[in-house]
Amino acid sequence: MDAELKEILKDFPAGPLSDYRKNASFNWKDMCLLMQGKDALILKHKIWSTLEKDPAFAHHATKPTLKETRLLTLQRAQKLAAYNFMPAKNLLGKPEMLDTVVMAIGQHDWSAIVKLQLLYNFVISALYGMGTERHFQEIQRLMRREIGACFCLTEIGHGTNTKAMRTTATFDIKTQEFVFHTPDFQAAKCWAGNLGETATHAVVFATLFTSGENHGLHAFFIQIRDINTLENLPGVSIGDMGEKLGLNGVDNGVMLFDQFRVPRTALLNRTGDVSESGVYVSPFKDKKKRLGASLGTLSAGRVGIASMATANLIKAVTVGIRYSAVRRQFGPEDSNVELPVLEYQLQQWRLFPYLGAAYVLMQFTRSFRSDFINMQRAMMSKEDPDRLASVGAEIHAISSCAKPLSSWLAQQGVQECREACGGHGYLAVSGLGQVREDNDANCTYEGDNNVLLQQSANWLLNLWSLVQRRQSIASYTPLGSAIYLDSAESILKSKCKLDAPHHWLEPQALLDAYQFAVCHLLRSTANRMQQLMDQKMDAFTAKNQAQAYYYRPLSIAYGETLFLMRMMRILNDPNISEQLRAVLKSLTALFGATNLMKHLSALTQGGYFQSNTSAALQTAIEQLCEKLKPDAVALVDAVAPSDFALNSALGHSDGQVYRHLEKHMASSMKSRPDWWQQVVAQQPLKNTSHL
Amino acid sequence: MDAELKEILKDFPAGPLSDYRKNASFNWKDMCLLMQGKDALILKHKIWSTLEKDPAFAHHATKPTLKETRLLTLQRAQKLAAYNFMPAKNLLGKPEMLDTVVMAIGQHDWSAIVKLQLLYNFVISALYGMGTERHFQEIQRLMRREIGACFCLTEIGHGTNTKAMRTTATFDIKTQEFVFHTPDFQAAKCWAGNLGETATHAVVFATLFTSGENHGLHAFFIQIRDINTLENLPGVSIGDMGEKLGLNGVDNGVMLFDQFRVPRTALLNRTGDVSESGVYVSPFKDKKKRLGASLGTLSAGRVGIASMATANLIKAVTVGIRYSAVRRQFGPEDSNVELPVLEYQLQQWRLFPYLGAAYVLMQFTRSFRSDFINMQRAMMSKEDPDRLASVGAEIHAISSCAKPLSSWLAQQGVQECREACGGHGYLAVSGLGQVREDNDANCTYEGDNNVLLQQSANWLLNLWSLVQRRQSIASYTPLGSAIYLDSAESILKSKCKLDAPHHWLEPQALLDAYQFAVCHLLRSTANRMQQLMDQKMDAFTAKNQAQAYYYRPLSIAYGETLFLMRMMRILNDPNISEQLRAVLKSLTALFGATNLMKHLSALTQGGYFQSNTSAALQTAIEQLCEKLKPDAVALVDAVAPSDFALNSALGHSDGQVYRHLEKHMASSMKSRPDWWQQVVAQQPLKNTSHL
Repeated sequence: MDAELKEILKDFPAGPLSDYRKNASFNWKDMCLLMQGKDALILKHKIWSTLEKDPAFAHHATKPTLKETRLLTLQRAQKLAAYNFMPAKNLLGKPEMLDTVVMAIGQHDWSAIVKLQLLYNFVISALYGMGTERHFQEIQRLMRREIGACFCLTEIGHGTNTKAMRTTATFDIKTQEFVFHTPDFQAAKCWAGNLGETATHAVVFATLFTSGENHGLHAFFIQIRDINTLENLPGVSIGDMGEKLGLNGVDNGVMLFDQFRVPRTALLNRTGDVSESGVYVSPFKDKKKRLGASLGTLSAGRVGIASMATANLIKAVTVGIRYSAVRRQFGPEDSNVELPVLEYQLQQWRLFPYLGAAYVLMQFTRSFRSDFINMQRAMMSKEDPDRLASVGAEIHAISSCAKPLSSWLAQQGVQECREACGGHGYLAVSGLGQVREDNDANCTYEGDNNVLLQQSANWLLNLWSLVQRRQSIASYTPLGSAIYLDSAESILKSKCKLDAPHHWLEPQALLDAYQFAVCHLLRSTANRMQQLMDQKMDAFTAKNQAQAYYYRPLSIAYGETLFLMRMMRILNDPNISEQLRAVLKSLTALFGATNLMKHLSALTQGGYFQSNTSAALQTAIEQLCEKLKPDAVALVDAVAPSDFALNSALGHSDGQVYRHLEKHMASSMKSRPDWWQQVVAQQPLKNTSHL
Repeated sequence: MDAELKEILKDFPAGPLSDYRKNASFNWKDMCLLMQGKDALILKHKIWSTLEKDPAFAHHATKPTLKETRLLTLQRAQKLAAYNFMPAKNLLGKPEMLDTVVMAIGQHDWSAIVKLQLLYNFVISALYGMGTERHFQEIQRLMRREIGACFCLTEIGHGTNTKAMRTTATFDIKTQEFVFHTPDFQAAKCWAGNLGETATHAVVFATLFTSGENHGLHAFFIQIRDINTLENLPGVSIGDMGEKLGLNGVDNGVMLFDQFRVPRTALLNRTGDVSESGVYVSPFKDKKKRLGASLGTLSAGRVGIASMATANLIKAVTVGIRYSAVRRQFGPEDSNVELPVLEYQLQQWRLFPYLGAAYVLMQFTRSFRSDFINMQRAMMSKEDPDRLASVGAEIHAISSCAKPLSSWLAQQGVQECREACGGHGYLAVSGLGQVREDNDANCTYEGDNNVLLQQSANWLLNLWSLVQRRQSIASYTPLGSAIYLDSAESILKSKCKLDAPHHWLEPQALLDAYQFAVCHLLRSTANRMQQLMDQKMDAFTAKNQAQAYYYRPLSIAYGETLFLMRMMRILNDPNISEQLRAVLKSLTALFGATNLMKHLSALTQGGYFQSNTSAALQTAIEQLCEKLKPDAVALVDAVAPSDFALNSALGHSDGQVYRHLEKHMASSMKSRPDWWQQVVAQQPLKNTSHL
């Protein structure tokens, strides 16, 4: 290992975690390199050590007020801009490093990096994607940070249904301007980050009208505030959405227009334009396709959210597992020594599947990010358009289930870790509250999880119609995420013969079962739709009637199958050591087995599982937990953020849980509360009372 | 309906919820009376309307700081004491009304009522339970509120394992005092509410020593702060535990003793005493039993937590369902009208099982509270001690699963409702954040959920040994919660023949399946334990190895079965109207069916379910959702707290979601942020940068 890495991957100090660390079956530093890569490790180290030295990034003993949080986040975002951890020139060769930067900063403070990304990068991408040469100057101004912007799509009364947006932009040929108008509060643009208190400019989606004709939703880049005074421009009303359940550093805003005029050139005119003479022109004949092309630039968001959720889950399992290795409770009756709670099967069963999920998601998000970057490169080089269209559709299908699954895994994992840390997990210094609050947004923005899942199922159903006609679907799944559908016929005829626990220690067995579940759910969904349509139900209604037990579990099973498939790439890599392979195999099997249990109804209804198959699977899960116990701490060490970024008294790498708690509480030991007189002054009441 | 009730149960104003209300199959006012009772309705109305008029209970636009929250909570607790909503004289005849008061205040602000209860009532009960005549004076002082106290059991390093507590109280015969000492920070008493900044006195559990002999854990009532200055007494160090994930109005503290002396009479000496001559005497020979008798006074806490969780779940489903009835998204392709999201199967499937849970838990907690009160009465009148012991053991078994199940249902229900409200659910004004944060504590205190569950299984396993010896267990389950175990043999031989969805619309079918699941899991658990012990495993280890797939699901199934059994009491009540019975039947079936799906592995492994049974069950769930759709809003109306207590822009009973949101955001529309110059002042940077 070279010197730079040696400096980063330092041995841990001796302490309460030493025993587990000594007993690990593998070298955590090797695992760290395998799962994260040298470049990312060096970059993360640089980021965390820089922020740790900067007082603007210091942790606060108690939660600042909303106002303080907003100001602090602005200052941090400005500092981050100045640090410039990933200069544009470095990004070209290694675009995936942008993810690394976002995750590393986010593990310390999501609000700051989200604010910064939204203020500049997100809008710059949007202008590149939807604008033309005439917007290049605005891109330059954003890059020089002369202006900051926000992205306004959602309205108060409409989120997912973009077609129902009601803000209008009407072309006035006399003045060569668009007139923006908001009919009522329900049509107000909202949720845009930085709109509330910061942005001077905005990408705004509005329904475009020329001479009374509706051309559908279009994007514009407009100024909304005075650059020098930050006052709203006349005709623009902007409000702040107020406190949220998390991410409170980001100022989400609401905006209404009152006959507000912007120049004709504000229209982001790549997919549709209005000429000086007021004529609407578009290369797209079909409105739906034109809007799709505009919104396509948003899919990057979902790819990013899967990584954000993964970063959150890593923090949670780090806290949950390190604390469980230190915390002792009960022990054998003939002994005075209490056992670390990590020794208990129930604690392992609660935590280890999420440790597995963290690893599986790390591998998935890394490989999926690379698919996404390849697609972007291919788009620039204008490769085979048919293949590109297939890749685009598949990436959409994958991101539409990967974002829900990863954000839910993080949500549930954080909650389980919180509970697994008992009372001390409920202290703010556990660090788990902030992770839960911030992660929760991942379940909703960029497409509500449950609504998004439908997209993946739609794509699969399209493939299924080909399968039914005995056509190969290979060219429609260039990334291979559904390639096994080509064998659906034989898969659906197969029956599971694995009735001993040891069979289920093999990820391949789980993958086989998962592929059966997907095929079965896909066939059932198609059949159910046919059945409902045969009852003269319209497609809209039929689809809605088939969500809970068809579309939804189908998309989930497809996504989880893909997670396993991607993890197999590491397991089958001849270059990794047997130590690493062995532990990763167990971790993958545990993740697969615990999640497969949720598809029991599909597996039994489809005839794949016999009545006792699940018993073998359960025993395998017990065995995998036991097997992973000595490795859990080292597995966490290999992916944990720095102690500074983790910021948890329970999850600190030195394992000195009680010292950190003592330090935290000692500061309050010296004084009575400011309001002590109010306690003392209370006069005894005459009546005795129970309430 | 009498005039007083008419005044309380007012018709709702016309608005976005009117259509659903008109289409309900039953009268919500009748349901309201059935589920809550006249007395409780009147009392709740009095509480909410009183608090609404009192500025001290006004809602805050943004979250106060920790310091502000603490002071506000103190003031509110003092006000509540003065309001005296349930005078002692009224409590005698209707002790169950105390629950009503706590729940009604808690639906507005948990911290305030928890603080008040802990400061006086909880400690008064403890003194009654564990003290003797000589502590009567202290009870009087507490009742007069001359002093306020806290309850110190948990230590920093030990929660559940009470036997491992390390704070000591050593009797000094010379001065007739106990000397309290804390060896190190891990032995510090902690988590006690009001200890941090308020209490002058404390019930403290410590290991009692006389002349070097250890007599185990005992409770003492001691003074810890000066009554006039609120300064710590010399020898006592008290700290504040700091910010938590919720319930931040309550000042949880940490306390260390340094050779701190208290009079001999501080010992709460009902179950053990030290004479002036330094001799330890106890009516209990067995230390374990003595401690059990002391800690027994705590079981009321778990009964109360089940009600608290229910109150939280009611708030969440009120918000989730009312908002879903107002919020519109998409619609049939040939129509311009968008549908309320409540029309979608997926939304129903996500929300209605929690609506069912709210009703089932309301009925359960009410009936269980009445069991508990009956037990307390029987204890006072010293009825048949054998029966009392059986009742006590059964109540312990029930509370040990009811508290986990109800707190988890609330936790999961709040999360589902939050997500089901989309982005707006993430706004603080949704009200869901506060409920989630406060409810989370219910999963942990008074016994961690997962640890507690083991207690119910232990009790069932004891019964099982009788069943195996073909003895009737009837006298061991005087409340009937496990009475069906007497038929275990025939239950275990039965096979489910219900393969059509309509079969599963009947709660009785679900109850049968549930009882099979309990019997099967009980037999499997006993067999598994035997198997492990046959492998020479000690009992401690064997039990730990049988948690995830035996003890845990067994306790859960037993608890859920009991919930259904209690709900059947209403369904079988000949006095209720057919309208109410019909909708409650569907609600109960939906609750039972969705939760039964989690026990699929037990039902298939046990041979009760055939491979396709779960398909019928799933279709039944779809049908029940559809059936309940027109009634969902009215079902919520019948249990919702007042709009003031609910405090949710999304869940207000007028359904004017967008008006409430507008009002909330309008206040921020007038001004730029204080720190606007910091946005403007930022100089453009020389380098373009992507981060």
